[in-house]
Parts: sequence; C-alpha cells; structure tokens
Amino acid sequence: MAPVTLADIVSALGGELHGPAELRIARLASLAGAGADALAFATGERYRKDVLATQAGALVVPPALLDAAAARGAVIVAADAHLYFARLTQWWVARQRTPIPAGVHASAVIGRGVQLHPTASIGPLAVIDDGAVIGAHAIIGPHCHVGARAQVGAGTRMQSRVTFAEDCRIGERGLLLPGAVIGADGFGFAPDNGTWVRVEQLGTVWIGDDVEIGANTCVDRGALDDTVIEDGAKLDNHIQIGHNVHIGAHTAMAGCSAVAGSARIGRHCMIGGAASILGHLTIVDYTQITSNTVVSRSISKPGQYSGAFPFDDNASWEKNAATLRQLYSLRERLRALEKKS
Amino acid sequence: MAPVTLADIVSALGGELHGPAELRIARLASLAGAGADALAFATGERYRKDVLATQAGALVVPPALLDAAAARGAVIVAADAHLYFARLTQWWVARQRTPIPAGVHASAVIGRGVQLHPTASIGPLAVIDDGAVIGAHAIIGPHCHVGARAQVGAGTRMQSRVTFAEDCRIGERGLLLPGAVIGADGFGFAPDNGTWVRVEQLGTVWIGDDVEIGANTCVDRGALDDTVIEDGAKLDNHIQIGHNVHIGAHTAMAGCSAVAGSARIGRHCMIGGAASILGHLTIVDYTQITSNTVVSRSISKPGQYSGAFPFDDNASWEKNAATLRQLYSLRERLRALEKKS
Amino acid sequence: MAPVTLADIVSALGGELHGPAELRIARLASLAGAGADALAFATGERYRKDVLATQAGALVVPPALLDAAAARGAVIVAADAHLYFARLTQWWVARQRTPIPAGVHASAVIGRGVQLHPTASIGPLAVIDDGAVIGAHAIIGPHCHVGARAQVGAGTRMQSRVTFAEDCRIGERGLLLPGAVIGADGFGFAPDNGTWVRVEQLGTVWIGDDVEIGANTCVDRGALDDTVIEDGAKLDNHIQIGHNVHIGAHTAMAGCSAVAGSARIGRHCMIGGAASILGHLTIVDYTQITSNTVVSRSISKPGQYSGAFPFDDNASWEKNAATLRQLYSLRERLRALEKKS
Repeated sequence: MAPVTLADIVSALGGELHGPAELRIARLASLAGAGADALAFATGERYRKDVLATQAGALVVPPALLDAAAARGAVIVAADAHLYFARLTQWWVARQRTPIPAGVHASAVIGRGVQLHPTASIGPLAVIDDGAVIGAHAIIGPHCHVGARAQVGAGTRMQSRVTFAEDCRIGERGLLLPGAVIGADGFGFAPDNGTWVRVEQLGTVWIGDDVEIGANTCVDRGALDDTVIEDGAKLDNHIQIGHNVHIGAHTAMAGCSAVAGSARIGRHCMIGGAASILGHLTIVDYTQITSNTVVSRSISKPGQYSGAFPFDDNASWEKNAATLRQLYSLRERLRALEKKS
Repeated sequence: MAPVTLADIVSALGGELHGPAELRIARLASLAGAGADALAFATGERYRKDVLATQAGALVVPPALLDAAAARGAVIVAADAHLYFARLTQWWVARQRTPIPAGVHASAVIGRGVQLHPTASIGPLAVIDDGAVIGAHAIIGPHCHVGARAQVGAGTRMQSRVTFAEDCRIGERGLLLPGAVIGADGFGFAPDNGTWVRVEQLGTVWIGDDVEIGANTCVDRGALDDTVIEDGAKLDNHIQIGHNVHIGAHTAMAGCSAVAGSARIGRHCMIGGAASILGHLTIVDYTQITSNTVVSRSISKPGQYSGAFPFDDNASWEKNAATLRQLYSLRERLRALEKKS
Repeated sequence: MAPVTLADIVSALGGELHGPAELRIARLASLAGAGADALAFATGERYRKDVLATQAGALVVPPALLDAAAARGAVIVAADAHLYFARLTQWWVARQRTPIPAGVHASAVIGRGVQLHPTASIGPLAVIDDGAVIGAHAIIGPHCHVGARAQVGAGTRMQSRVTFAEDCRIGERGLLLPGAVIGADGFGFAPDNGTWVRVEQLGTVWIGDDVEIGANTCVDRGALDDTVIEDGAKLDNHIQIGHNVHIGAHTAMAGCSAVAGSARIGRHCMIGGAASILGHLTIVDYTQITSNTVVSRSISKPGQYSGAFPFDDNASWEKNAATLRQLYSLRERLRALEKKS
C-alpha cells in the first residue's frame, strides 16, 4: 500500500487540518494503542485526558478538543469526529485491501440458468442454485449457498458460509457475515391430537438496500407473506428474526436479540442486546429497547423502554428474589395497614 | 405446475365445499395478502372482520365462520381450519416443488464403507464420512457434513450446511435446517488447580422420528450416555441443548431457548422463546414455559410457568429496579409496622 | 482397539488399585449406564447410593467412597476422582479414535504462500487463504475456512465448518467446534442523520493456548485494537463475544452467554449460561456470574453475582409482576406509613 499523508486524507474526506500536511500515517489506531505512525480519534470532551496521553502521530477531533489535541501534535478537526473516522476507515480499507477478483472460482458449483453479472465474484466451494440472479460487483464468498431463484443486488457481499435460501431477495450494498442463515423455514405447526403438523413456509425474505446481517444470525422466511427487512437496517450477530417479521428502515439491533413471528418494528429503532420482542406486536418508529428487555406488549409512544432484573451479590439477590415471589401479598398487607392507620 | 381447483383440494384433503368446484387457485395466501387467485384461511371467530375484508378467491374456515365466509365467496369448511391448512401447505409443496434427484453430486466427498440407499440424495459439496448410513429418500443438502458411522433414517432431510457428527443417529422423516450442529462435544471440564481439564464426550445424540431442528441450533453429544430427543419433538432456531439432555416426545421449543446439561423435559411440553432450563432438572409432561422464563427448579405439576421481568418506560423501570434491590428490607419494615399496629 | 485392563489404566494415570489388575474394561460409562464391562466414576459422598446400585465392573472414586465401592467390586482410588476421570477420557480417546492423517485432502482449496506444517491435516473442502500459517499437527476439518494470513498454532483443531477470519491468531492445543465464527466484523456504526455509517473493523482476534470455543459461538474482531482471549479460557456454544472484549486466562463461559464490546473479564471467572455482560465493563478475577444474570456495572470484588427473575406458576407470576411495576410507589407508601406510626 502506498504511504498515506494527512494531505491525502483531508483531500479525500475533508476536515480542517492543523499540522504538517506531509505527515505519513501507517495505520489507524485507538488512542491507547496509537504510536507516532498512527492516526487516532476522539469523539468528545470525555476523552480529553486520553487525548493528552496518547502517543498518536495525529488525531481526528471535534472542534471542542482542538486546543487539547493541537497542544500535542497534528490534528484534523471534523464537526462529527466519529462519523469522520467511520468514513476514514472505509476509505482506508478501500485502499488497503486486495480487491476480490471477479469471476467464478473453479471449485464453485453453479446451477442452470444462473444470471451472473460479469463483475460479480463467486468464491471457492460456493453453491449457486438454478435460476439465481447475482448483481454487479456482488461477492459470494467461500462455502456460501445461494438458493434457487434468489436475487442478490449489486455490490452486496456474503462473506463466507452464508445461506441465502431459494426465492429470497436482497438489495444493493448489503453485507452478510459468516454463518448467517436467510430464508430458513419459519417455525409453524398446527396441533393435531398431541402431535404437530408442519405448516410449510411459502413466503420468502425480502431485504432492502444497505442492510447488514451479523454472524450466525437467522432471518426466517414468511409463512405466506414475506419477512421484510427495510433499507439501512443493521443486525448484529446471533439474532433470531421469526417468520413474517417486519423490521423498519435504519433500525439497528444488537447481538442475541430476537423478534418472534409477525412482530412489526418501526424505523429508526434501536434494539439492545439480548432483548426479546414477542410475536404479533407493533413497535413505533424511534423506539429504543434497553438490552435484555422482554417486550411483551406493543409500543405506540417513542422512547426508551427497559426491563432487566438488577443484578446483585448472590446473597442479596436470593433474599430479594425470594421476597419478590410474595410481592403481591406484601402489597395486600400494606393496603391493610393503610386502612387501619 | 398444473392448475389446482377447489375440487382437487377437497378431493385430496376432505372438507366441505361451498362454492364452485372448478374455481382455480394459483396460490395460498394470508387473509390480508390474498387476491382473487388465492386461497386463504381463518382459524376462528377473532378473524371474522378479516374474513369479511379479504380479497381471497376462496377460504378455509371452521364451521363457526361459514356464514361470514360464504357471504363473500367460495368456502371449504373444516372442523380444524388451522390443521386443514397445514396439510394443504404440505400437499401444495409436494405438487409444486421440483423433487431433488436421487444420487450423489459429483462434488460431494464420500468416505469408505458408506451405506447409501439408492434413492437418497447427496448434494453438492457434502461430506459423508466413513461408515455412515443414509436411508431411503434421505436428502443431504449442500455443504452438509455427516460424521463417521452416523445413521440417517429414511426420508430425513438436512437442508444445507448441517453438521451431524460421528456416531449420532436420527430416525425417519426428520428435518434439519441450515447451520444446525448435532453432536458437537458437550461442555465438560474438571478443575485442576486453576485450570480446566477437558472431559472427552464419549456419548452420542439419539434423535427419534419426525423431529425438526431449526437453523443454527446445537444439540450436544452426551458425556458418557446419549443426549436424546424423542419422536415428534420440534426445535426452533438458535436453541442450545446441552449434553445428556432428554427431550420428550412431541415437545416444542421456540427460538433461542436453552437447556443445560442433564435436564429432562417431559412429553408434550411447550417451551417459550429464550426460556432457559437449568441443568439436572426434571420437567413433567404437559408443562408450558412462558418465553424468557428461567426454570431453576424441577417442575412436577403440569401447568404454565412464567418469570420474565415486566418491561416499562425506562424511568419507571429505573425506579422500580432500584427499589427491587431493597425488597427484602422493605418486607422487614412492613413486618415491623405490622407488629406495631 | 486393544483390550484395556485396570493395570493399563493405573499404569498410565496412577491411582490406587483395589481389585484384579487384569480386569478388562470395554468402555467408560455413567454409574447408571454401566455394565460389567464398564468403568464408571463417582466424585463424592452424594453419589454413595448410586455407587451401591451401579452394575459397573469397576469404579474410580475418591478415598471417602472406597468402602462403598470396594464392597461391590474393583476400585481405583484417586484423590480427585473427577479430574482422574477427565484424564482417563483423554487417554481413552487417544487410544480409541483413528488418528486423522496428515496432509491436504484433494478437495481442499489452498491459497498462495500458505505455510503448512507437513504434520498438519487439511480436511475435505476446507479453504485456506493466501499467506495463512498452519502449525504442526494442527487439524483443519471439513468445510473450515482459514482466512488470509491467519495463524493456527501447533496441535490446534478446528472440527468442521469453522470460520477463522483473516489475520486472526490462535495458539497451541486449541479446539474450535463446528459453526464457530472467529474474526467476523464487530458491530460498529456512526450515526449520520438517521442512517448508519459503517466503521470498518481493523483489529483482529488474538487467542492464546489451550482455548476451546463452542459450536456456533462468535468472537468478533476488534475495531482498532484486538479482541483477546487468554490461555486456557473455555467458551461453550452460542456465545457472543463483541469487538475488543478481553477474556482473562482460564475463565469459563457457559452456553448462550454474551459479552458486549470492550468489556474486560478477569482470569478464573465463571460466567453462567445466558448471562450478559454489558459493554465497557470490567470484571475482576475470580468472579462468578450466575446463569441468566445481566451484569450492568463493573465488578471489583470477587464473589458470586446473580440476577434472574424467580419463576413461578403463571398466575402467581402475573400478580407479582404487575405489582413489581408499582414497587417504587409501594416503597413510598410504606415510608408514609412509617412516618405516621
């Protein structure tokens, strides 16, 4: 990789440079991990102490930290330093990483009638079933499986070992991490005299543009209608999305969260890690769910909702948890006292 | 696919037809998603309004909804409309889907001494290890791995990317979804002066007939005895079954639930999503566990058991959660007041 | 496998033999599952009844159980019977299992510049990317993917279908179970006017010696610095380790637990199943977290911490949970009464 100077960076990404334009940057680093060859960033006032202590050759900071940062070396000032650094990491990676070559690896297995854009890349030991459509510059990594008639939009990347089942569709610039399973059958059975009779899942999964789906996350196909994930949604690892769920645009879900069947989550929501959304609920746009919260009713008013049990040392928890099982009767006793007093 | 008429459907599946037998059905759909070419279903009274509003060409309903459904078009009446529709989806899929051809894909890797029924299908890039036994009409999908001496019953299907480890056995008509891992080593260690010494897991997994196991679900092999999943059990996605667990027949477990080692769950139980069953417990037949419940003691009486923290707006939760950490002392204070009064 | 006698076992592993040295052992078994051909073990006094009832041909017991065990047959006495049996299972497996041959399977795909030790084994349909380094006696199983420049230490085994991403490193004698994903991108985004801008994850994962990682467990790569798992740590299945987490040496984590980004867990900790550690926390060495606990603050004092909601029959839970939402006001009412009395 050619050397990068601060001038290269501000030329590509903007920002106000204070310091030597010709300073070379060998890597991006955290404030604590940076040396003289590194560029680091600080997002705000609470990192002032770390800014003063870092060994970084240069810093990206918001205007409020310019004084502290400039006192110690080169600085790029950006109104939103976090956003600037995010874009910088993308620019950096685009320069640094070897591009994955277009074409089909000799070991891949390609079905009949596959529409494969000539700029797309199919990795080693991938399987593309009959009639699938793979868009321009899409990348299907090693051990991925794209089912029959599935459609993969331009620039979408399946890193490795992704299952993208038959008839499912994903838009452009998507990213699917290893182990993700898109379009497995939803969990649907009719009871029959003590046994379960399978309801075949006839819907598919529809995913918009700019969606990211984490490692080992599952998005089930719909029972009759489709499961939908709108544009710009970001799903972390180990997430379970049940059949016929609808995730609104630009909603972000942290790891190990789960949404049961037919729930409808609005746009611009933030769902914390290991949170559960029960089935058939509706959650309004701009709702935030704290991690480990069980959402058991619909939410119609935006805001933050929580519900984790407060942890404690084991002895205290045991006493409080035991008492919690008598809580209703405690309330009754309190009422009785109130009446007497 | 040949066109399907209502006559074809009642001829195959029974039910009482009210309306034109020659009406053609192009797809099965939800009440809301159906058009004139579609057949939809309603399970009971609470869907009366949806029945009146649907655009479906025909409906499957229970007797109680016949009046509403017949007022608007063709109807099939079935005593249990959900069960009827479940069977209809299976019949539909059997007609519609291209059957997977028998035989071994050229890219699959087959070990020595494998007993492969001539009607079985081994998909692209599957690996079948030495001595495995694959039954009639079994389907081993792309990227699946069947370990040495494993036994797969007739009609059982591993969709894709399933790991089915050495010496494990599954009965007939099973279904394993992508990413499932059957027979990985259980988590067993002996402490040794601050380090952990591995206990090799010498048991296997034994799975009965008609069992379904969801995407990315793990069923660990036993330490010495086997982990057992009896006939007809249905496991959703992202489930963890620890070593030496025993799941009774026809028990259904929803996504993200977990059962720790050596627990024994009865028959006909229903375990809600993200519920946890701790190790070495016994749960009696016909028990229902609400989602997100932590079962920390054995259950000897059938019924429904629950234990999720009720969620609230964040400010209310914070106040209540903080108070919860003082609950035992509140009880003591209440007692003191009661003595005084 | 050659027959094993009790003499062979004590010769290899020590222990004090009471009984016929020439007794042949055909298998290791649980107390309940053992027959006359089996060796079983009991760890302590609470298994006395099972010791008296077992059909095992021989037993491994601690000194306290010698009397009971000797009254019924052959015995090996070991100060720590659990540890003895753990070592015995390893010795047993080493004798019993067919060793996996060194060399590269013809169907594997090997990149350029891979440094492959001649004693290493690369299984069918594995993919090893450019510049990866695979140590002596390492085993890369079927469908595994080792990314570019990744380093795998001597004796480390990836069972099957493991993703070990580019530039990640693991030490010696590690074990990675099927479906594990090491080095997927961490979940990092900068908000930009209602959308999310990806922060490329430039760190890697560094794993020490003697580490085990369970089936379908994910360990994300760091954002700028590395995610670290120190020597001897043991991770069960379905675990989520966020970017830049640090897990101390010999810490054990049970299934479905999760650690959010940048948390730091000490050495010799035990994290229960389905426990959650929130981001950026520090947990001191020798901390035990009970299963299903949400750790929302740092822990500076070793000990056991808990926080699961106590489950109950559904009707009781409903009353107590409803009351819990009024807990703070109950406290206020109690205070008011106390002031009056």
